[in-house]
Amino acid sequence: MAQQNIFDNEVFFDGYKKLRDQEVNANILFEIPALSSLLPDLEGKEILDLGCGFGEHCVDYVKRGAKRVVGIDLSEKMLEVARKENADPKIEYLRLPIEELDKVSGTFDVVISSLAFHYVEDYAGVVKKIYEKMNAGAVFVFSQEHPFTTTYSNKLPRWTRDENGKKIYINLADYGVEGERTSTWFVDNFIVYHRMFSTIVNELAQNGFVIEKMIEPTPDEELLAKYPEYYDLFHKPDFLLVRARK
Amino acid sequence: MAQQNIFDNEVFFDGYKKLRDQEVNANILFEIPALSSLLPDLEGKEILDLGCGFGEHCVDYVKRGAKRVVGIDLSEKMLEVARKENADPKIEYLRLPIEELDKVSGTFDVVISSLAFHYVEDYAGVVKKIYEKMNAGAVFVFSQEHPFTTTYSNKLPRWTRDENGKKIYINLADYGVEGERTSTWFVDNFIVYHRMFSTIVNELAQNGFVIEKMIEPTPDEELLAKYPEYYDLFHKPDFLLVRARK
Repeated sequence: MAQQNIFDNEVFFDGYKKLRDQEVNANILFEIPALSSLLPDLEGKEILDLGCGFGEHCVDYVKRGAKRVVGIDLSEKMLEVARKENADPKIEYLRLPIEELDKVSGTFDVVISSLAFHYVEDYAGVVKKIYEKMNAGAVFVFSQEHPFTTTYSNKLPRWTRDENGKKIYINLADYGVEGERTSTWFVDNFIVYHRMFSTIVNELAQNGFVIEKMIEPTPDEELLAKYPEYYDLFHKPDFLLVRARK
Repeated sequence: MAQQNIFDNEVFFDGYKKLRDQEVNANILFEIPALSSLLPDLEGKEILDLGCGFGEHCVDYVKRGAKRVVGIDLSEKMLEVARKENADPKIEYLRLPIEELDKVSGTFDVVISSLAFHYVEDYAGVVKKIYEKMNAGAVFVFSQEHPFTTTYSNKLPRWTRDENGKKIYINLADYGVEGERTSTWFVDNFIVYHRMFSTIVNELAQNGFVIEKMIEPTPDEELLAKYPEYYDLFHKPDFLLVRARK
């Protein structure tokens, strides 16, 4: 199987890095706090981070008391940044596609993945491998693009706006047609894999996971007062987060 | 708490009964087969049917070998039909809102609800009561209107159509705003309660249920060849079904 290595594309990498360097964006305001709220106590735990990117999460896990962190990512360019900016004796960075996570040695107490699963075509296969890499009672927490986002393709504008350009609703088509979607995000051929909610849930359940919590983050009143533009998340949450237990 | 008793409204009742008497509709083609596929073996089982309506499901459960079936419904008009057309010594029909299911005596091996939960405001309270009414290892199966449908209100047309009137995408707004929705379906003030996927899942998980399977029915190739208009379900599934175990 060929894995998409979009993060080693220079145009994409530069655009993405600028986005991640912003002080305020949807990741910082919604995805990171939601992911954090789903994590168990990490003290003394062995942790596997799937699609670790720049490694910011990995150093955070060490700060929270993790004994060992293994971060894997397909992108050499991202791992270069991770090894330079987020190195720690307790962290090991490996260049591996998520689909080959079974090549990592040992088993883990917590498996975490932040915003990588929508790049994974073989979700069922990856879920199975994660289960096998987990100790009994271990926790799996992941975030991905929300299905309302992954269903989007270049075929249809994502939003309908009023006469002032304000987003009033999303144009949602082909939600029930799973698989590859090509759109434009920094580059022309940005590929994600769309899955329905039921598929995301069923692959976990069928592989023995107990689903404990899901989050589709929306702003609370305080955030909304400060950033009214994020009302859009009530129409289309950007993220879906899941915690499941072995 | 006041429960909506829309089914005892004569205009609504007549419109709804005509719909249910059709030989082919989305219920028959998609909801009933999906619900059926989620049921465990009913031989010798005690079954509680929440929102039993005309009782067609209850007699089917007896045919499948159920030892005892209790069907509850808020609508006297529907129970009248049930007692006349779908009576059986093993079936007991009770006039009770779903919210008061704790008043039914005994505990059950299977709790089933077909297309009633979108009328329930206090989903969290009902899930808790269902869990308490279930024997260890018992199964809870329910269907409801899909969240893409319950999010709809009179504020926005549901579909965008092309120049020939063909539905091309849904106009989806306020998915993240949960609660009451008023629309027009046979009557002007048709009320349902909208919940996000995550809320539907979380209330089950937090109350101790293990989620085993979810279905968002879409047509297979054979059905699509016969009824091409049901391609619409790929844009907006009409139903969401869940099986969970105590």
